[in-house]
Order: sequence, then C-alpha cells, then structure tokens
Amino acid sequence: MTQSSEDTLKIAQQAFEHFQHGLATAEWQGFLNMLTEDFKFWFPIGKFHGWNQGKEKAREFFHYVSTAFNQGIKLTSLDRITSNQTTVVFEFRDEGLLLGQPYKNRVAVFFDVRGDKICAYREYFGSDGKS
Amino acid sequence: MTQSSEDTLKIAQQAFEHFQHGLATAEWQGFLNMLTEDFKFWFPIGKFHGWNQGKEKAREFFHYVSTAFNQGIKLTSLDRITSNQTTVVFEFRDEGLLLGQPYKNRVAVFFDVRGDKICAYREYFGSDGKS
Repeated sequence: MTQSSEDTLKIAQQAFEHFQHGLATAEWQGFLNMLTEDFKFWFPIGKFHGWNQGKEKAREFFHYVSTAFNQGIKLTSLDRITSNQTTVVFEFRDEGLLLGQPYKNRVAVFFDVRGDKICAYREYFGSDGKS
Repeated sequence: MTQSSEDTLKIAQQAFEHFQHGLATAEWQGFLNMLTEDFKFWFPIGKFHGWNQGKEKAREFFHYVSTAFNQGIKLTSLDRITSNQTTVVFEFRDEGLLLGQPYKNRVAVFFDVRGDKICAYREYFGSDGKS
C-alpha cells in the first residue's frame, strides 16, 4: 500500500515534535512510541557512529544524547522541510551544553515513514559543533 | 511562477551529474554554468565553513576541493534522492585521498532550484571523513 506525501509529512512532523521534546527534556517515550520495531538509524560520530539497529538501541542512543546534553538541547531554528512519499528531511539548528561546553550545530535529519511509524532515521551534521 | 516537482528534480539531477563530474575530474565549468549569479552555499567545516555568497566564491571553493583531493573524489553510492518543488536532496557516499590520506564520507547535499538553475547548495556530513 502506498501512502500519500501528505500522510507521510504529517506522521514525520508528529515524530519531530516528540523528537524536539526529547532533546529539550530527556523524555523520549513519545518519540520511541513512534518507531517501528525494526527501526534503524545512522549517526555520524562517536559510540553510535554508523548504522544502529532496533528500537532498544534507539532508546539507548537517545538516553546517551540526553546524558551528554544534560541541560537539554534547544532547537533554535527549523530552517526547512523537504519531503516526498517516503522520506521527510528536517534542516534545523540547535544549541546546548555538551559535557558542559557550549555547543551549536546545524543538522539535517531524515525520517523514513512506514504507515504511521518511523522506520529509519539518518542524521547529518552541517557544522563541527563549535559554531 | 511555480515550477513542477518534476522540473525541479530534472534540473537538480543535471546539476548533480556535473557536480559528480567535477568531483571526479576537477572540471567544474559545467556545474558552475548551472548556478545563478546570486548562488549561495553552506559548507560544514574549514576555510569555507558557513554561508558563502556568489558564483565566484563557488568557483574558488570547488577549485579548493579539487586541490585537496587532487586525485579526484569518487562517488561510490547514490543512496537516496528526496525532493519537492524547490529542493532536491542527494544522500551519497564518496571516497578519495584527502591530502594523500584515505577519506570516506557519507554526505547529504541540498540543491535549491530556481528556473533552470541552482540558487543554493547546502552540504551536511554523515561521517567524520575517516570511515
């Protein structure tokens, strides 16, 4: 069954709201509820660099992010959304304190949508995290 | 005047072919010919970190890329294209020798299309360039 671009966008936007809430508050359950069991994600650097498989791994990852940014990450600007029937891309800027040091980044996250869930996530960095 | 998603995709794909050719051969004129005069681009790191304005700056940048990768950069996989009426996103992997050292990256490039030209380009990295 194919789904419309509008449905895909709507689901991804719901997930993105939960994602943003998770970044700010470390409460990730709402976001995790929207992931398929076979969810996979790509992260650019560090312990989770590369492809990671499964919802439990995702839970571990987002907990790790919130531990590193223990005062939360604030999304300062949602610059652009590009989407089609299967994928929605959010380009945004964020900032916070990473292990106590000021951190700013420009990020592109890709959500692949299947039905009313997110089945894959890919993150790309537009900056080096320092400015 | 609005343009169709199909036209936008077609123009961006032409530009991407020239872009790929430029990476491989250091011949950038075909790509540069497809940029608007007010073209702007975002690059994540180094000398060109941040927003850069104008076609001449673009010429300087792509020359700089080809100097750093003087044996060319090979696109090893075009993983996904996501697009709408104004923007086309290419997710790909590439590799080459950066100042003589093996380099691999996963990259997302965003082309904003106006008419039959590219008016903006944003690049994001999905890896740290080492693996």
